[in-house]
Amino acid sequence: MKLMILKDELNDAIQQVAKAASSRPAIPILGGIKMDVTHQGVTLTASDTDISIQSFIPVETGDQVNARIDKPGSVVLPAKFIVEIVKKLPSTQVEIEVSDHFQTMIRSGSTDIQMVGLDPEEFPVLPSIEENEVFSIPGDLLKSMIRQTTFAASTSEQTPILTGVLWNLHEGQFKFVATDRHRLASRSASVETRADYRFANVVISGRTLVELSKIVPDNNKLVEIVVADNQVLFKVDHVLFYSRLLDGTYPDTSKIIPQQYKTELVLDTKKLTDAIDRAYLMSREEKTNIVRLMTLDDGTIEISSSSSELGKVTEQLEAARFDGEPLRIAFNSKYMLDALKVIDSEQLFIGFTGAMSPIIIKPTDHPHSLHLILPYRTTG
Amino acid sequence: MKLMILKDELNDAIQQVAKAASSRPAIPILGGIKMDVTHQGVTLTASDTDISIQSFIPVETGDQVNARIDKPGSVVLPAKFIVEIVKKLPSTQVEIEVSDHFQTMIRSGSTDIQMVGLDPEEFPVLPSIEENEVFSIPGDLLKSMIRQTTFAASTSEQTPILTGVLWNLHEGQFKFVATDRHRLASRSASVETRADYRFANVVISGRTLVELSKIVPDNNKLVEIVVADNQVLFKVDHVLFYSRLLDGTYPDTSKIIPQQYKTELVLDTKKLTDAIDRAYLMSREEKTNIVRLMTLDDGTIEISSSSSELGKVTEQLEAARFDGEPLRIAFNSKYMLDALKVIDSEQLFIGFTGAMSPIIIKPTDHPHSLHLILPYRTTG
Repeated sequence: MKLMILKDELNDAIQQVAKAASSRPAIPILGGIKMDVTHQGVTLTASDTDISIQSFIPVETGDQVNARIDKPGSVVLPAKFIVEIVKKLPSTQVEIEVSDHFQTMIRSGSTDIQMVGLDPEEFPVLPSIEENEVFSIPGDLLKSMIRQTTFAASTSEQTPILTGVLWNLHEGQFKFVATDRHRLASRSASVETRADYRFANVVISGRTLVELSKIVPDNNKLVEIVVADNQVLFKVDHVLFYSRLLDGTYPDTSKIIPQQYKTELVLDTKKLTDAIDRAYLMSREEKTNIVRLMTLDDGTIEISSSSSELGKVTEQLEAARFDGEPLRIAFNSKYMLDALKVIDSEQLFIGFTGAMSPIIIKPTDHPHSLHLILPYRTTG
Repeated sequence: MKLMILKDELNDAIQQVAKAASSRPAIPILGGIKMDVTHQGVTLTASDTDISIQSFIPVETGDQVNARIDKPGSVVLPAKFIVEIVKKLPSTQVEIEVSDHFQTMIRSGSTDIQMVGLDPEEFPVLPSIEENEVFSIPGDLLKSMIRQTTFAASTSEQTPILTGVLWNLHEGQFKFVATDRHRLASRSASVETRADYRFANVVISGRTLVELSKIVPDNNKLVEIVVADNQVLFKVDHVLFYSRLLDGTYPDTSKIIPQQYKTELVLDTKKLTDAIDRAYLMSREEKTNIVRLMTLDDGTIEISSSSSELGKVTEQLEAARFDGEPLRIAFNSKYMLDALKVIDSEQLFIGFTGAMSPIIIKPTDHPHSLHLILPYRTTG
């Protein structure tokens, strides 16, 4: 194998795939990046067997020559070192040559690196996914959906299925749900698919989605998605991102979402967020993060928290709308802040069905987001 | 105690002093910020007994009214909470009122905070320093001197005196020296003082200097310095920064600095830094960070490192000047990089007196900096 390649193109592709290389590999090959060189271009692959990322650098992009291939071939190089060294090479050009026993020579300007590569035959094989059904979604929308739900997924490995985000597709509605049993976040969006294409109980690791999010560009360029039996594949430009699906059945969360409310509020999102943020600062001294919300007779809202050591914070907030019964409720302010921070409408709706029932938070300007927080049982 | 104060002024002063408040106080009062209110203004003080910082907010600055004092008084409030909450208060004005038993009320817009303050009588008393002799130095120069030496101080508490930076003043030359026994950094500068004013063996904690550096503005405004028996005081605008001096006698380092060299090199600072940075990436796999430097017959320099698992990096570098004997030497590349990163001249001088003797690195455009690195004894 022998080629000359542009440093910046090589570096970009390495940074993209390196996220899938295991940082503490059980066997060295899983901490590597596989490089496959053909006359068409260079394919880089990394895989920790849960996630695999592949990036392709074509020999030419428009007028720009990215690589000159002298001899096709393959090698696996250690990700940790390659990720750091390539971006620091002194020349815009990098020459890579692999000889017997995967002895690898990397040259750039006055730098000369000799490495022992690994056998690409030992590298994990990428999942083969039949692309019968492909649908697509704008990159920025996919990123929003990930950001607005993943934080609510569980981080505890005691219930592995809840560390994932549930995906459903039904009648063109693509829906994400995440819950850790204390709160829930859901987000849906219309996508263009074949009318009767549907799937349910597809669960993708929250951490994987956060990694995916870093690769997806923040614009409306389409990301293609293929959902298979136990894998999902994302195609972003020249990058393929494979993830294993989580095993198990995701709990049915539809029944815990109240359909009617006894108390309804419409509040300014930023003012509520700021007020709860201040109350949180006091509440976190008590570890439980308890903040109280109380409706007052004049239609304003009082938010308060207290710490036995520090004192008490009390906030007054005007409601843009207040319908229904008076209310006193207590909740985890950290969970509330997590939800408020991803609500992108100026005003938000909060619905209550009592001090012991789930709190529902929704943006006022579209029906595609819903957040649920279970209240605390408190005295007084 | 009762006053109204501008949030931004209060917040700035809190952020300045809070660095001295203990984050894990042995007694609660050491985790507090003391607030002293007089008709002249508001003085904030924090102290972990090693460092004390005091900031004064005058009632007026030029045309701007910073505070309206209704009733003078004092209170101590917990730094951790105050640091976070004040910057998040909703109004530009903050009202603070302290009643019996240090019950404190903080009001800003719709926010109302009740706190239990602590008794200012229990707060540590600031060191009293006689200001017989004051000298001053531009803020940006002081910051440079700190940045160019502190990194070489020891981080091991086994030899506490070496965790400090040695200060000497002699004939208007103000000198910093730091060493951890493996490398040494020194920096001197001329300052205006009384002709016969001098001090020696003044040792200030490296960590303290890093904290001081954050308060010193990055311009040529003068910082006043008062050195006393066991304390040093820095005056920066309205801020007073007190630090205890380290006990003990700093070792005499003057004898280990060679006065003559057998091999002398002048190299491009950036090119050498980049080459050693690449060699470092390979060397760090071996924990020892060993990088080798070798002069070649044609007057170029070869820098190399190897890892038994990964391979070898070899770098070629042109010397702008090469005088004296051929040389092969090995050193800790991390130490070398630390020194190179604070050398601000385009070219640098390196002097060697043999493979087992200290390496000396100096900028070429001024004689005020010197770095010393002890080589590794290696075979071959």
